[in-house]
Amino acid sequence: RIMRPDDANIAGNVHGGTILKMIEEAGAIISTRHCNSQAGEPCVAALARVERTDFLSPMCIGEVANVSAEITYTSRHSVEVQVNVMSENILTGAKKVTNKATLWYVPLSLKNVNKVLEVPPIQYARKEQEDEGKKRYEEQKLDRLETKQRNGDVIFPIINPEPHTVGYSQSSLIHLVGPSDCTLLGFVHGGVTMKLMDEVAGIVAARHCKTNIVTASVDAINFHEKIKKGSVITISGRMTFTSNKSMEIEVFVDADPFVDESRERYRAVSAFFTYVSLSKEGKPLPVPQLLTETEDEKRRFEEGKGRYLQTKAKRQAQMQQAAQQ
Amino acid sequence: RIMRPDDANIAGNVHGGTILKMIEEAGAIISTRHCNSQAGEPCVAALARVERTDFLSPMCIGEVANVSAEITYTSRHSVEVQVNVMSENILTGAKKVTNKATLWYVPLSLKNVNKVLEVPPIQYARKEQEDEGKKRYEEQKLDRLETKQRNGDVIFPIINPEPHTVGYSQSSLIHLVGPSDCTLLGFVHGGVTMKLMDEVAGIVAARHCKTNIVTASVDAINFHEKIKKGSVITISGRMTFTSNKSMEIEVFVDADPFVDESRERYRAVSAFFTYVSLSKEGKPLPVPQLLTETEDEKRRFEEGKGRYLQTKAKRQAQMQQAAQQ
Amino acid sequence: RIMRPDDANIAGNVHGGTILKMIEEAGAIISTRHCNSQAGEPCVAALARVERTDFLSPMCIGEVANVSAEITYTSRHSVEVQVNVMSENILTGAKKVTNKATLWYVPLSLKNVNKVLEVPPIQYARKEQEDEGKKRYEEQKLDRLETKQRNGDVIFPIINPEPHTVGYSQSSLIHLVGPSDCTLLGFVHGGVTMKLMDEVAGIVAARHCKTNIVTASVDAINFHEKIKKGSVITISGRMTFTSNKSMEIEVFVDADPFVDESRERYRAVSAFFTYVSLSKEGKPLPVPQLLTETEDEKRRFEEGKGRYLQTKAKRQAQMQQAAQQ
Repeated sequence: RIMRPDDANIAGNVHGGTILKMIEEAGAIISTRHCNSQAGEPCVAALARVERTDFLSPMCIGEVANVSAEITYTSRHSVEVQVNVMSENILTGAKKVTNKATLWYVPLSLKNVNKVLEVPPIQYARKEQEDEGKKRYEEQKLDRLETKQRNGDVIFPIINPEPHTVGYSQSSLIHLVGPSDCTLLGFVHGGVTMKLMDEVAGIVAARHCKTNIVTASVDAINFHEKIKKGSVITISGRMTFTSNKSMEIEVFVDADPFVDESRERYRAVSAFFTYVSLSKEGKPLPVPQLLTETEDEKRRFEEGKGRYLQTKAKRQAQMQQAAQQ
Repeated sequence: RIMRPDDANIAGNVHGGTILKMIEEAGAIISTRHCNSQAGEPCVAALARVERTDFLSPMCIGEVANVSAEITYTSRHSVEVQVNVMSENILTGAKKVTNKATLWYVPLSLKNVNKVLEVPPIQYARKEQEDEGKKRYEEQKLDRLETKQRNGDVIFPIINPEPHTVGYSQSSLIHLVGPSDCTLLGFVHGGVTMKLMDEVAGIVAARHCKTNIVTASVDAINFHEKIKKGSVITISGRMTFTSNKSMEIEVFVDADPFVDESRERYRAVSAFFTYVSLSKEGKPLPVPQLLTETEDEKRRFEEGKGRYLQTKAKRQAQMQQAAQQ
Repeated sequence: RIMRPDDANIAGNVHGGTILKMIEEAGAIISTRHCNSQAGEPCVAALARVERTDFLSPMCIGEVANVSAEITYTSRHSVEVQVNVMSENILTGAKKVTNKATLWYVPLSLKNVNKVLEVPPIQYARKEQEDEGKKRYEEQKLDRLETKQRNGDVIFPIINPEPHTVGYSQSSLIHLVGPSDCTLLGFVHGGVTMKLMDEVAGIVAARHCKTNIVTASVDAINFHEKIKKGSVITISGRMTFTSNKSMEIEVFVDADPFVDESRERYRAVSAFFTYVSLSKEGKPLPVPQLLTETEDEKRRFEEGKGRYLQTKAKRQAQMQQAAQQ
C-alpha cells in the first residue's frame, strides 16, 4: 500500500511501527490460512514472538510497501513465518529491501481461546531446512522462557529531571483497546501493540536527542500474555544505553482489564528498540551520551552495552563470512 | 488485508466504499508505476473514470481481501487498469470473486499538475486485444463528454417529509479534506471520494428501507475535476428509482476550495449507486416503493427505470451467451 | 501521543476536536477504573457533562500531547474528573498548558445499560475540598436541567445566501456510528461526538471568514441522551454571534436510530464553540461581522453577546484577583 502522511514523522520517514504492523498482519494471514488448511477446529493464529529485526533503509511518504510472507518451519504447536518488506518508489522504479522479519505464531481455537491446536506440517525441499528450523525453534523457545522471568520492572516519573538523564526522556502513553485493534478472537493484534511501542520509543529517543530519529532495529519481542478488547494498555519507555550513534530504549506494555475485576494489571510485552538520529541529508548523527544516576540505571546501561557489542560482533562475523564467499 | 469492524456495517458486511477504495489504490499504484517506467518527467496517475462495477458477493469482517491489478490498454494520454478483488475466508480457505472493476487513469506531471504527460505504450499478446481496448477507450471518452453536460443539479432539503418520499431519505455530508486523503500532488484520491459517496448512498438506502443494506453495483463514475487539499466537500445523495428488490441512489460531490478565494464551489463528481436490502440470512428483501411527488422526481424515476431495464437486458444477454458457449 | 498531520488543519494547528477527544478518553479511563475499584457489578463510565474549557495555546503537528487526569469529586452517582493537557515540543523541550477541563461521568452497568450504579467515595485531603466539590456538583446539576428544556431548534437551509449571513456559513454533516466510535456498552464515546461537533463548527467559522481558524473555547456541553451503535447522527452548526475578534457557533447533534424503528430522531447534544481567526504569524485577526436577518437570528446574536460579555467580565475579575494576590 501507499505510505501516507500519517504513517510518517515530520521529516517524511515512515514510522518503524507502521512497518512492524504491516509485517504482523501479513504473518497473521499466512499462518491462520495454513493452520486452517486441514479439516478440523477453526482457529486464529496469535503472535507469540518476533525475532530481532533490522530496519535496513528508511521508507518515505508516497512509496509503496510490498510485503511478502512465507512459512519456513512448523513445530507441533507453532508456525515460523519469514516476512520481507520492500519499498518501491513508483516514480523512479527504485526498490530497496526495508526489513526481513521472522515471526512465530500459535493457533488458538475459535471456540475455546485457551486451547492451542496442532499445526499441519509443511514439506521441506531439503532435510537441512527442517533441521535448521528445528534449531531456531529450540533457541527461541529457550529465550521466551528466560524473558518470562525478568518482567517486574516499573517506571516511576521523576520531577524536574536533568537533560540526558533517564528520567528526562522517559515517556508513557495509555490506549483504550477498540474493536479495530483486535482479531476475531477479541484480542489485540500483535502488530497494533508493536506500533504503539515504537511510538513511545520514538518519543523517548526524540526527547533525548531533539533531532529527527528513526527506528534502526528491534530486539526479539515475546508476547507472553494476550490483551483483551476493552482493556486499557499503558506503554512505557525509558532509555537504557547510548553508543556514539545509537540509542537503546526499553519498552513495557502493561494491560489493565479494568472492567473485568477478576484480573490484576499485568505485564503483557516488553522489548528493546534501537534508534539512530539522522541529519537532514539522512546521515547518522552523534547522539548525546545517556547520564546514568542510580545503580539500576548503571546496571541496565552495562547490559545494553553487552547487547550492543554482541550485535556488532555478530554483524562483523556475518560480513567477514560474506566477504569470504 | 484483513477486514476490520470499522470496514463493515453492523451486520458485518464490508462497505462497498471500502472495496472501491482498495480497488482505486491498486489501480493508482500500477498505473503510476507504468507511467514512470520510461525516462522523462516524473508523474502521478490520477483517476479519470471507473466503469460500472457489480458487487458479486458480500465480504465479511475477518476475511482477507486479495486485490490484483493489470494494465489492459494504453492510449496516448490514458491507462486502462483491470482490478479484481477476491475475498478469502482464511478459516475455511473459501475464495469468492467480489468485484471486477475497470479504471482509467491519466498521468499528471509532478512539477506542473495541469500538464498531462504521455503514456508509454504496452505490448499486446494479440492484435485483437489492442483493437478491443481502443473500442473501450472511444466508448468511455464519449460517455465522459456526455456526463460533463448534465451536472447542474442541486439537492434542496424538504421540511417534514413523508416516509418513502425522495425528501425523506435524502442526505448529505461535508468532509474537510486532510493530508491522508490526498496523493503526492495534493489532490484527493479517487478512492477516498468513492468511499464517501458510498457512505452517503448507504445512509439514503438505509433511511428508506430501515433494514440491513449492501452495495449491489456502481454505475460508471467520471472524475471531471480535481479536489485540492484543504477543500470542504459536500456529498449529497437522493433516491431516484426503486425496483422490487433494488434501490438506485444518485450521489453528487461538490467541492468548495474556500481558503482559495479565486474559485467558486463546483461539481466534482456524480454517480449512481444501486443497493439491495438483505435479510438476516443474507437473502434479498423486497424494498418499499419510492413515492415520487414533483415532475423532476417522476422524470428521474423513469430515467432510473431505463437504466435498470438496460442493465437487466444486458445481463440476460450475457447469460444466454455464456450458456451457448 | 504525537500529533499527526491528520490531527491538524492545513496551517498545522491541531483541531480542538482532537484535543477534546483525548481529554474525554483520559476521563473515561480514570472514572471507569475508579467505579470498578470496589467489588460489585462491572460498569463503564459514560460522559454526562464537560464544563466550559478554554484552548490556551494552539498545538502543532509533531508536538507531543501530555494528558493527565485526576478524580476531584464523587457524588453518589457521578464522578468529577479534572484533565490537564500540556503540549511539548520534543525538539526544543518547550512545554505549554493547552487545556484544563472538568468532566462529569456516570457509571452504567455492563449488564443493564439503563442502570446507574453507585460510585465508591474518594478521600479528601481537606474538608473544604469536599464542600467545594459539592457546590460544583449542585451547580452543574442545575445547569443540566435547564439546558434540557431549550432543545427544540432545527437548522433550515437557505438558498443562495449572501456572504456573512447566518445562512451562508451554516453547515451540517451526517456520520454513521461505527464500532470504533463506541464504548464497550455500544454507545458513542462523548469524545467522538465532541470531535465531530468541533469539525462542523470549524467549517462554519472557516466559511464565514475564509482564513485559518482555531478553536478558542467550548461552553459547557451536556450529554442528555446516549447514541447507539449503527445510528446516523446529523451534526449541524450555525453562527450566532461575532465580536471584533471571535465567532460563536451553536452546534446541534441529532441522532436517528433508524434500524430501531421504535425511536424517533432526537436531539442528543448541543453546545457553543468560540473560534478565532489567526494570521500566518499566529496573531488574532479581525473577523467579518455577522449579518443577522430574521428576528430569531437577532435574538440569538444578543444572547451570544450576553455570553461573550459575561465571560469577558469573569476573566477580568479573575485577573484582578490574581493581581491582588
